Amino acid sequence: MAATRLIATLVLSFLLLSSSDATHRKKIRSRRPCKQMVFYFHDILYNGKNGKNATSAIVGAPAGANRTTLAGQNHFGNLVVFDDPITLDNNLHSIPVGRAQGFYLYDRKDFFTAWLGFSFVFNSTRHKGSITFAGPDPLNKTRDISVIGGTGDFFMARGIATLMTNAVEGEAYFRLQVDIKLLECW
Amino acid sequence: MAATRLIATLVLSFLLLSSSDATHRKKIRSRRPCKQMVFYFHDILYNGKNGKNATSAIVGAPAGANRTTLAGQNHFGNLVVFDDPITLDNNLHSIPVGRAQGFYLYDRKDFFTAWLGFSFVFNSTRHKGSITFAGPDPLNKTRDISVIGGTGDFFMARGIATLMTNAVEGEAYFRLQVDIKLLECW
Amino acid sequence: MAATRLIATLVLSFLLLSSSDATHRKKIRSRRPCKQMVFYFHDILYNGKNGKNATSAIVGAPAGANRTTLAGQNHFGNLVVFDDPITLDNNLHSIPVGRAQGFYLYDRKDFFTAWLGFSFVFNSTRHKGSITFAGPDPLNKTRDISVIGGTGDFFMARGIATLMTNAVEGEAYFRLQVDIKLLECW
Repeated sequence: MAATRLIATLVLSFLLLSSSDATHRKKIRSRRPCKQMVFYFHDILYNGKNGKNATSAIVGAPAGANRTTLAGQNHFGNLVVFDDPITLDNNLHSIPVGRAQGFYLYDRKDFFTAWLGFSFVFNSTRHKGSITFAGPDPLNKTRDISVIGGTGDFFMARGIATLMTNAVEGEAYFRLQVDIKLLECW
Repeated sequence: MAATRLIATLVLSFLLLSSSDATHRKKIRSRRPCKQMVFYFHDILYNGKNGKNATSAIVGAPAGANRTTLAGQNHFGNLVVFDDPITLDNNLHSIPVGRAQGFYLYDRKDFFTAWLGFSFVFNSTRHKGSITFAGPDPLNKTRDISVIGGTGDFFMARGIATLMTNAVEGEAYFRLQVDIKLLECW
Repeated sequence: MAATRLIATLVLSFLLLSSSDATHRKKIRSRRPCKQMVFYFHDILYNGKNGKNATSAIVGAPAGANRTTLAGQNHFGNLVVFDDPITLDNNLHSIPVGRAQGFYLYDRKDFFTAWLGFSFVFNSTRHKGSITFAGPDPLNKTRDISVIGGTGDFFMARGIATLMTNAVEGEAYFRLQVDIKLLECW
C-alpha cells in the first residue's frame, strides 16, 4: 500500500514536471552549448579600384550617395553584399575553410550600427552545410547575434554567436572573430 | 509483485509519452506566451527635404525609379533601411525605450504588401538585448510576423508579433503598434 | 524495500534522462517531418521590356551596373525583389495557390550562388498563413534552405526545404521546386 501511494506521488510529480516543462520550457534549459566553434572572416570592400581583391560591394545607398564610397552620416542606408573567406586563425592569407555570404546594412545616422543577414557556408571534409545568422550589430567591442537556422551538419541549429572586431583598416578591410555557440543541435 | 508490475506499466507509459512528445511535439505545446510586451514604433521616410527628422531612407529601387519618391505600382521594389524610435505609447515625442532597426521592401505590384527583416534593440535598465523579426507583411489591419531570435534578455527567443498600423500620414510618416508574444523563453 | 529501491532507481533514471534531454536535446529528436508539402514557384525578371509579366526586379546593383541587365561576374551584388506565383504543379499558367515574396541576392564573383530571404504567403481555404525561409543557395542541383518561422496554419514552424531548379530560360525565367519538411509544428 505504502509502495502504491509512493508510486502515485511520483507519477503526479513527473506529470507536473513534464507539463511545466512543456508550457514554459524555461527552467530546465541549459545554456551549455551542444556545439562550439571559433572562426574569423575577412571583408574587403570594393572602392572602385580593388575589383580583383574585393570580397564585398555597396549595392544600395540613399539618394545623393554613390556606390564606390560609403555614405555620410555613418554610412546610413548603405547596403553591402559580401562573399568573404572564413579562416581558422586571424590571417587573411590562411586557406579558407568556408565562405561568409550575405549582406549587411548600416542603419544609424548618429553613430555606427549595422544589421546583418548572412550564412557561413562549409563544403569540406570537416564541415558540410550552413549556419544562418540574423540580427542587429551594435558594433560594440563584443556583441551577440542570433543563429536562426542551419543545414547539413548544422541541421535545424539555433544558438548565438559572439562577434568581435579583430582588425579594421580604414574603410577597405575589416576582420571579425566569430565565436559560435549552438544551443539546439539535432 | 503487483507493485513491480505496476511500476513496469508506469515506466512504459512514461517512455511512450516522452517519445511521442519528442517526435511530434505538437499537442502538449502551449500557445500561452512566456513573455508579452506592447510597443509602438515611428517611421519618417526621407523625401529629399526632411533629412534632419527622417528615420528611414529608400536605398534600393527598380530601374526608372529614384530614391526620394516611392516607386509607382505600389512601390514595388523599393527597399527602405530604417532606424526608428520605439515608444511605450503612441506619441512620437515620448522618450524612446529602444530602436527598431532593419529594412522593409515593397514586394507587390497590384497592391501594397511588404517583407520585413528587423530587430528591436534595447539598452536600458528595463531591457537589454534584441528581438529579431522576419516575414511578410500583408498590410492588413492586423497581421502576424515571426520572432526568429533574440539576444540578452531575449536570449534564444521565438514567438510571434501582431502588427497594427496605428497611424499613416501620406508617405512621410507611419506608426505601428507591435504586440510581442514570446512562446519560447530561456 | 526492494520495491522502494527499485522506484528510487527508476526516479533517478528518469531525472537523468530528462536532464540530458534538456541539455542536449539531440538523441530523441526525430527527423520525421510533422508536415510535408511540395510547391513550385515561377520567377520572371524585369528586363526593361516585360513590365506587364515580370514578377521580380533588380533593385540593387554594384557601382557600374544598371538595373535592367544582370551584372557581370556572375551577377555579384545584384539584389532582386520578387512576388512570384506558387503553383501545385510545374505549369506557370496553373492557378496560383499562394505567393512567394521576398528577395534574393547574388553573392559570388567566381560562380553563381545566392542568398535568400523570403516567405510563402497563403490565403486560401486550403492554407492560411506564411512560412519564412532564409539562407544561402549554392545553386547545386539539390540544396536545402532553413525554415525559420511561420504564422497562421504554420505558427512557429521550423524545418527545412529542399530547392530544385526545375527550369531556366535564359535570364528571363526560372522555376523552383520546393519540398518543404516542417520538423517543428505547434
